[in-house]
Amino acid sequence: MSTENHQPSSTDLTALQWELLHELRHNSSRAVMLHQMIADQLGLNATDHKCLDYLNRSGPVTAGQLAELTGLTTGAITNVIDRLEQAGYVVRDKDPTDRRRVVVKPEPGGSGNISPLFESLFQSTLTLVSRYTEQESRVIVDFLKQCNEIALEEMNKLKERRP
Amino acid sequence: MSTENHQPSSTDLTALQWELLHELRHNSSRAVMLHQMIADQLGLNATDHKCLDYLNRSGPVTAGQLAELTGLTTGAITNVIDRLEQAGYVVRDKDPTDRRRVVVKPEPGGSGNISPLFESLFQSTLTLVSRYTEQESRVIVDFLKQCNEIALEEMNKLKERRP
Repeated sequence: MSTENHQPSSTDLTALQWELLHELRHNSSRAVMLHQMIADQLGLNATDHKCLDYLNRSGPVTAGQLAELTGLTTGAITNVIDRLEQAGYVVRDKDPTDRRRVVVKPEPGGSGNISPLFESLFQSTLTLVSRYTEQESRVIVDFLKQCNEIALEEMNKLKERRP
Repeated sequence: MSTENHQPSSTDLTALQWELLHELRHNSSRAVMLHQMIADQLGLNATDHKCLDYLNRSGPVTAGQLAELTGLTTGAITNVIDRLEQAGYVVRDKDPTDRRRVVVKPEPGGSGNISPLFESLFQSTLTLVSRYTEQESRVIVDFLKQCNEIALEEMNKLKERRP
């Protein structure tokens, strides 16, 4: 990986780099479509469903912490939590370590109907990941981390645009 | 990349491979959140917005072709096109090469308010992509292609589950 810092233009790209950009854009489309389809089957929207996924990994957090994890605004997060609570996936509860704080907790068993939808995706991804050498895996991890960083930066820019 | 064909279990994974899985899951979450945020600003949902993106790249296609491109069901695509048409982003029109066929066309100028939201994302991604060597780029392209293939397979499985 080169450490050059000049800003390239689209005319600098090789055919392979264009292919990479194309596959990346396609990847983000596939993620949106797949998660919309899963969310449809759960009666949720894709954002709610992904927030639930963050919550299942983080354990109980405050609404503010969930906003930070997901990159959403605190206003948007309140609506997400309301919908998830109404659908029985999460509960709001007092933090046992600080009773003045309210945390959002995944409802035990609430995600029971979600896991089967992901089993096959998980197995396929696991098989894919296990095929790469350590060196190749490092390149991919580095690439994904930077993509995730870029996405977060873009979300922060969009928040500033918001009226 | 090894060509072994046995199905690994999650206990076979190294710390690096777990990190890769984690970043990949995070990547898909970021894609969902970012595109939801963009769609919110456009008054569309994320699926509609991504279908429009496919359409802007493909040019005029039939509803059936758009379903195939996006991986959505033809039923879902009809609703997407209805919403996009109502919002002024696309029109349904007779195919000039076969007047019996109806194609969906991006409305000229309809996407004018979308491009600015993507300029900065495009520039950041272009800069990222241009930093990798040819060999590294090949690894990433291969990885993304396989992820996209897996996502499509999962979408097809979900369609079969659909009542």
